[in-house]
Amino acid sequence: MPVRSIDWDDGAVRLIDQTALPERAVWLRLSTVDDLVSAIVRLAVRGAPSLGAAGALGVALAAHTGEELAAAAAKLRAARPTAVNLARGVDRALRRAIDAGATGPDAAGAALAEARAVIEEEAVSSRTIGTRGADLLVGALGERPMRLLTHCNTGWLACVEWGTALGIVATLHGRGLVERVYAGETRPLLQGARLTAYELSALGAPYRIVVDSAGPSLLSRGLVDAVLVGADRIAANGDVANKIGTYPLALAAARVGAPFVVAAPESTVDAATATGADIPIEERDPREVSVTFPAENPAFDVTPHDLVTAIVTDVRTVDPRREALW
Amino acid sequence: MPVRSIDWDDGAVRLIDQTALPERAVWLRLSTVDDLVSAIVRLAVRGAPSLGAAGALGVALAAHTGEELAAAAAKLRAARPTAVNLARGVDRALRRAIDAGATGPDAAGAALAEARAVIEEEAVSSRTIGTRGADLLVGALGERPMRLLTHCNTGWLACVEWGTALGIVATLHGRGLVERVYAGETRPLLQGARLTAYELSALGAPYRIVVDSAGPSLLSRGLVDAVLVGADRIAANGDVANKIGTYPLALAAARVGAPFVVAAPESTVDAATATGADIPIEERDPREVSVTFPAENPAFDVTPHDLVTAIVTDVRTVDPRREALW
Repeated sequence: MPVRSIDWDDGAVRLIDQTALPERAVWLRLSTVDDLVSAIVRLAVRGAPSLGAAGALGVALAAHTGEELAAAAAKLRAARPTAVNLARGVDRALRRAIDAGATGPDAAGAALAEARAVIEEEAVSSRTIGTRGADLLVGALGERPMRLLTHCNTGWLACVEWGTALGIVATLHGRGLVERVYAGETRPLLQGARLTAYELSALGAPYRIVVDSAGPSLLSRGLVDAVLVGADRIAANGDVANKIGTYPLALAAARVGAPFVVAAPESTVDAATATGADIPIEERDPREVSVTFPAENPAFDVTPHDLVTAIVTDVRTVDPRREALW
Repeated sequence: MPVRSIDWDDGAVRLIDQTALPERAVWLRLSTVDDLVSAIVRLAVRGAPSLGAAGALGVALAAHTGEELAAAAAKLRAARPTAVNLARGVDRALRRAIDAGATGPDAAGAALAEARAVIEEEAVSSRTIGTRGADLLVGALGERPMRLLTHCNTGWLACVEWGTALGIVATLHGRGLVERVYAGETRPLLQGARLTAYELSALGAPYRIVVDSAGPSLLSRGLVDAVLVGADRIAANGDVANKIGTYPLALAAARVGAPFVVAAPESTVDAATATGADIPIEERDPREVSVTFPAENPAFDVTPHDLVTAIVTDVRTVDPRREALW
């Protein structure tokens, strides 16, 4: 079985510490909810699908250790506000635990079963998204080597297994259809330059890291055939919240008519969020940007749906310029 | 007299080392053309107007030390390809030296006199651009505190004195009309987070550093009234080459209808370059981006003139959407 970036491990949550990569592959074993919340806040685990797994596993952990479930769920949900998967993972495991009596071995077993279901679903979703997205791009661009641009990290680290946008890249690479991947370094925390580069190296796909602000001009110079990104939350109208720096790539892709494809599991689509304006944008510590001078650090931006040519989930492909998701 | 970031100093070129800022203000005294070329290549002196001064001073230095002028001029011109000011400064001083006999004290005196004229013109240009640009924005936005977004560094460091885009900010701040400046950090070498922050702190203007990719969403969220940037070369049709990351700001400003103002001395307008496609884009060492993984490092991008609402020089203000510059 492929290695999963996060999983249950005999009474604890086991995950690879994404802050230590690419220098070191450090696996953490977290046995309290507080330790898991801390890992989420400092981005040891990140990426919307992996956060969904973390949320559900956190509730399972609380049920196992006898921590009060509602308090644990609240702490987990509040750890990061933008990715809807985190709260959804929490809610799914919490409901099962409560249905099973809220405390005791039955509740713990029910929460863990649900967490395992979340993990399994994300793993399966990624493979489906990879195939669906690859087919979409072959349809749009033809069966030929492609020059792709991506941002942040959307591979197995972010998605339990395989990946969303990077899962599509991996699927295309498996078919011999990747000429070059440009990966934005993703300031301030360099998820692209650290994690995506690490994953693309492991895949053996040809790639180059670029500063984030270079992506738009790569598009205008005709060096990119399509943009592939993930999502932290997709509103009902198709507006997409994703890592800061996604929106300028969408603007540039629209200007040259290049496909701008958002890949995410259905669990990232939030029918309860009407538009991008309703998505909370996490403001992180300014010291991630500068320790010397005053800074602001919005971690996400919103790409309006009129700039998105396709949203690819595990169950459907939608052109949000033509139809809403809900 | 205000301090100049680069000037002649008794047989040598004196300049502040921009790579040591903001930690230390180190003044270099360079007495050979090779030392000056090396300073230009490693960006100890940078910014189109300051590079114009460096080019002319380099020829004066060659004439003083008796170095062969044509060879010195060629080395200086080749040090950086995108900013037209460098080659222009070289050519101006070279012509005067040749007219005065090419070698000997008369040639050295003529080259130095021309270099001093270049420096003086850039200093005067900056003040004029500051006033002209400030008046333009007051006309467009009204006499009220403004929220401005800038990129890279365009203050006295880049411009001998005062500044171009940042000169406009300084002029507006002097009139009490700056509510907030957002400054892109400017990866990979952080001219914004190091140099612009240093200059804005010295001015006492309220500002925040942001990652480069955040600028477009600040615009889409209605947090920016106008974008102000400099230029390394302006083509005859109004296309603008400037630091990588300028183009996405222009795309985002156009989408919300915010003024996108390019400020540069007339010496940056190149009638001999028809369009942006004719501007050579410097590719710098990929290790400036990543020392661990393969990278590409284009240092500039081209903003097409249809996205530029005004080009402000020391002698005119042009709307390149309506008329060409040459």
